[in-house]
Amino acid sequence: MNETAVSPLAPAGFPDLPPVPGVELATLAAGLRYKKRADLFLAKLAPPTTVAGTFTQSLCPSAPVDWCREILPAGGARALVVNAGSANAFTGSLGETAAELTATTIAGRLGISATEVMLASTGVIGEQLPTEVLGAALLQLGGSLEASTPSSWGDAANAIRTTDTFPKGAAATAQIGDRSVQVVGIAKGSGMIAPDMATMLGFVFTDASVSSSALQQMLTPAVDASFNRITVDSDTSTSDTVLLFATGAAATPEITGPTSPGYAELATAVTEVSLGLAHQIVRDGEGATKFVEVRVTGAETNEAAKVIALSIANSPLVKTALAAEDANWGRIVMAVGKAGQRANRDALGIWIGPEQCAEGGVQKPGYSEETASKHLQEDEVALTVDVGVGNGKATVWTCDLTHGYIEINAGYRS
Amino acid sequence: MNETAVSPLAPAGFPDLPPVPGVELATLAAGLRYKKRADLFLAKLAPPTTVAGTFTQSLCPSAPVDWCREILPAGGARALVVNAGSANAFTGSLGETAAELTATTIAGRLGISATEVMLASTGVIGEQLPTEVLGAALLQLGGSLEASTPSSWGDAANAIRTTDTFPKGAAATAQIGDRSVQVVGIAKGSGMIAPDMATMLGFVFTDASVSSSALQQMLTPAVDASFNRITVDSDTSTSDTVLLFATGAAATPEITGPTSPGYAELATAVTEVSLGLAHQIVRDGEGATKFVEVRVTGAETNEAAKVIALSIANSPLVKTALAAEDANWGRIVMAVGKAGQRANRDALGIWIGPEQCAEGGVQKPGYSEETASKHLQEDEVALTVDVGVGNGKATVWTCDLTHGYIEINAGYRS
Repeated sequence: MNETAVSPLAPAGFPDLPPVPGVELATLAAGLRYKKRADLFLAKLAPPTTVAGTFTQSLCPSAPVDWCREILPAGGARALVVNAGSANAFTGSLGETAAELTATTIAGRLGISATEVMLASTGVIGEQLPTEVLGAALLQLGGSLEASTPSSWGDAANAIRTTDTFPKGAAATAQIGDRSVQVVGIAKGSGMIAPDMATMLGFVFTDASVSSSALQQMLTPAVDASFNRITVDSDTSTSDTVLLFATGAAATPEITGPTSPGYAELATAVTEVSLGLAHQIVRDGEGATKFVEVRVTGAETNEAAKVIALSIANSPLVKTALAAEDANWGRIVMAVGKAGQRANRDALGIWIGPEQCAEGGVQKPGYSEETASKHLQEDEVALTVDVGVGNGKATVWTCDLTHGYIEINAGYRS
Repeated sequence: MNETAVSPLAPAGFPDLPPVPGVELATLAAGLRYKKRADLFLAKLAPPTTVAGTFTQSLCPSAPVDWCREILPAGGARALVVNAGSANAFTGSLGETAAELTATTIAGRLGISATEVMLASTGVIGEQLPTEVLGAALLQLGGSLEASTPSSWGDAANAIRTTDTFPKGAAATAQIGDRSVQVVGIAKGSGMIAPDMATMLGFVFTDASVSSSALQQMLTPAVDASFNRITVDSDTSTSDTVLLFATGAAATPEITGPTSPGYAELATAVTEVSLGLAHQIVRDGEGATKFVEVRVTGAETNEAAKVIALSIANSPLVKTALAAEDANWGRIVMAVGKAGQRANRDALGIWIGPEQCAEGGVQKPGYSEETASKHLQEDEVALTVDVGVGNGKATVWTCDLTHGYIEINAGYRS
């Protein structure tokens, strides 16, 4: 396992996150893969907690993803268990059994039903979970909820890390009627969208009272606006999972749909927390030295704009140019051209930061490469492209592609 | 400009390529961008040479690509002009004019029509061609055809290079009735499918007599089986061009369609030459240290198999694992999963070289990581995946992703 230095784009520290009534946290160093650090996380959720989820599009999903998809329609959750180090993906029927055993053990320990236990695993693909070690650890983990010093959000965010160089957390509040509710999230991921240790996991908790269907209506667009708009290397994990839990402990009037009072406010807070977590994942992108915002306007539709923006954000040649702080905007033209979405070459506008490089299909007269290069020397850079055919727009976030990425991924298992 | 060492995967030397009757070659050091090397290539083609072409799918194609697309339907060609160093892409109406001037100048010098002059440019995007320098050089180039020592295929292959570390050529013969005809090709490209200096160009010449429609029918599947099945970094150039010329100088009976005698033989030779050139491009992949064959079987259709194979071949995480000679087959599972094509996770088989890693959805009992790792230490490696749903199959070729790629592309313009 490499000891990697903390990303230069990391926030100054882990944010101060408030407790969320109805959520109890526990973490444990189970030694499943890592030594001397917590690698197992449990959130106990008070009744009547509801849950919504979004999962990887991979056609080879992990056993925990299959498990969550199966139990999600019931809409309730009493616990979440996450382990780091082993993904329980591509592990066949033994993997299914390991997932079921995990849920059953925690359920037995907490006196709940196994089908109310959400699961997530992240780590190496193709290795079986060591079920005996895990079983004992789960019993201990359940017991530790009664400890005098409960685990914090920071402990939890640390326990779910793999190649992450810093723990990730975000919080917001929402006003529902005259009451304020908490929205707190933690996440892991640094090779989003990547496999192995680099799965993207996000868990968001609120003490509002929300029906599971309203919660899902809220989560889907929040994920689309955040976790689905970041990319580190275009690879997609077998295990990507985002779960949103609402404990109802704030005793606010139940939100049952988009027209319920407080729906919009809570949806905004959930999106804000999701976006905060997503940006932190990009900031921890493997080998990243630049946080890059790619904005596309003038596309046929918003969806087309997103495809073009991701084509730019995923292009190895754009990303290596950014690493070199090289204002090589011809590579942006290339990435627009290969995206397969309508664009008017002869009306294309390209900006690096505030400096417009291209206009009307050619280099802009008076374009200053010096100004563009200066912008690229910042830690946070912005690329803007107008493709000149419509009103569709989208923003996505990525990082640059550096020797660090190769270093981490070519050395990672050894 | 970086001086890059020759790729470790380069062939021992440039092949011995025979002349193709009806084709005369000239090259010149025009100083358009490079110093002290030829950067301009002319092939003069005897009447009644026919031509077929395939071009980049980019929606921001270069001016020469637009030019060729416009004149191709006429089906005849009397010359081909290629310059290296500047792509004449994203250059607006000035770029169009530069393309037309190039064709017109050569046409005037050779006494042919400008609409019989095929063009290709490769190099930096967004810079205008220096038309005065180019104009004078073209006149000189036309004159040099009368020189006592004509240019060779090796000279031509060198003149069209940009970041290529070695010139690329291949030849085959085909039997048409009792006559043997030549098929000779040259190509450039090392960041296929990449922009800037890394455009993929291929030019194939035969002295057979073939109608332009039959030639196109022959070229399209040949390109699909070769140039369209290689990938270095998943980026697509604005300028990719493959042209096939038939001079008819061998005076063989004209091939007018797939049922003509000799069609199958010639098509086979064209495919063989195209594949030879395509493989050389992969061997010159930027930073490549491994030549990688990815075979997919058991897919729903051949097209689905190709999508899955390219998903594996383009995955940065698979490619960095190969660079590290790390038998991390979980990353192959990931790449299959993200391809978006039907695959049966629980019937998946994965082989690294001769060693089967995975079978029936889990690691194969008795799998030897040592044997797999040993295979990965070779220069040429093979990954085989059976996705267990049908009879579709495809093979594609790629290289590994190393520090060398970052080095070349993060440093390239400076």
